[in-house]
Amino acid sequence: MRKIQVITLFPEMFDGVLNSSMMWKAQQQEAIEFKMVNLRDYGLGQRQRVDDTPYGGGDGMLLMAEPLFAAVESAREYDRNAKVVIMTPRGQRWKQAIAQDWADSGDGYIFICGRYEGYDERILTLVDEEVSVGDYVLTGGELPAMTIIDSIVRLIPGVLGGEDSAAIESFSDGETLEFPQYTRPEDFRGMKVPDVLLSGNHAAIAKWRADNSVKAD
Amino acid sequence: MRKIQVITLFPEMFDGVLNSSMMWKAQQQEAIEFKMVNLRDYGLGQRQRVDDTPYGGGDGMLLMAEPLFAAVESAREYDRNAKVVIMTPRGQRWKQAIAQDWADSGDGYIFICGRYEGYDERILTLVDEEVSVGDYVLTGGELPAMTIIDSIVRLIPGVLGGEDSAAIESFSDGETLEFPQYTRPEDFRGMKVPDVLLSGNHAAIAKWRADNSVKAD
Repeated sequence: MRKIQVITLFPEMFDGVLNSSMMWKAQQQEAIEFKMVNLRDYGLGQRQRVDDTPYGGGDGMLLMAEPLFAAVESAREYDRNAKVVIMTPRGQRWKQAIAQDWADSGDGYIFICGRYEGYDERILTLVDEEVSVGDYVLTGGELPAMTIIDSIVRLIPGVLGGEDSAAIESFSDGETLEFPQYTRPEDFRGMKVPDVLLSGNHAAIAKWRADNSVKAD
Repeated sequence: MRKIQVITLFPEMFDGVLNSSMMWKAQQQEAIEFKMVNLRDYGLGQRQRVDDTPYGGGDGMLLMAEPLFAAVESAREYDRNAKVVIMTPRGQRWKQAIAQDWADSGDGYIFICGRYEGYDERILTLVDEEVSVGDYVLTGGELPAMTIIDSIVRLIPGVLGGEDSAAIESFSDGETLEFPQYTRPEDFRGMKVPDVLLSGNHAAIAKWRADNSVKAD
């Protein structure tokens, strides 16, 4: 079975997300197996230390190389050909085309969640992919990992089943097209559904949707 | 107290994220209050229905206007001046400068989490801000909401306390600068920390860091 492993100091952050909705279904369908690797288990000494101060000065605490290496090596023992991924501002920008490639690849993935203060650079010698989800600072790599995982898993064949929708076409190859959608009632507090959508005229509906599509920036 | 409310069909997705790490501390410090609003509670009829098929045809199910309006109105009763936010591909791209503005604003926020199949367009009449976290398709608005919330809350004065670090400077006004960082040991499996970082020469260290900074794409 396809495996996604996550190395994190906060495995409990993933519980709600991985056990809800599409991610839960994907596990029930045995399309994917998630495994959390608690970095603390690879900490050094009695206090299971995972971080230390940076050489050359600076305020933050960095994740040390040794526990990270041990955690990645353990994850690789469980899935020998897995790709190792780290989320960093200098990584390639995550986008739908990459999500599709990774879903199609059949590969397993090991996500390393850094904390915002940083990590020892030497961990990058184990990393196959550096990815950025956007130009904003987060507390750690956990939310970016969940985001990337969600975008991949929903594309694995069979996971969404019959739930596919037009919305998916919004992002074919980076082109984003979205048109306004309406459902019942026809009149809600005086706000009416455009007549054309009630017309049953498929050509007119398609034209209206194209005319009213907006491209995301 | 500053309030962040989230309208979602999957409130349990937020438990692990809001009760860990920085988000948990922010609540302990009473810097922020999180409130989940379960959209299902505003569903119609005995089955508490929240979605229906789109006018004009299409595969997906759309979130209906009526439950969404009721949920937003309930959230606004709890926080009368709150800004209403929805995550959509055509929204403005989320970035660090906006996170800083929202953190500084003192405003409360109500996040509406759509599902990927879409929602009735009329809900936008209640929305103050449309935001996109990136060019990728997710199952719902929950992960983008968590991402935006994390990026704002960590900037609220007092939340991070003494934990501030150089990493924060990575994203001043969209400029991203990151340099390699190292911590103990000096030699890990033959990979050595650059000598300059051990030199104690602050000017040389600053120059090395500037020379080795990369700008994120």
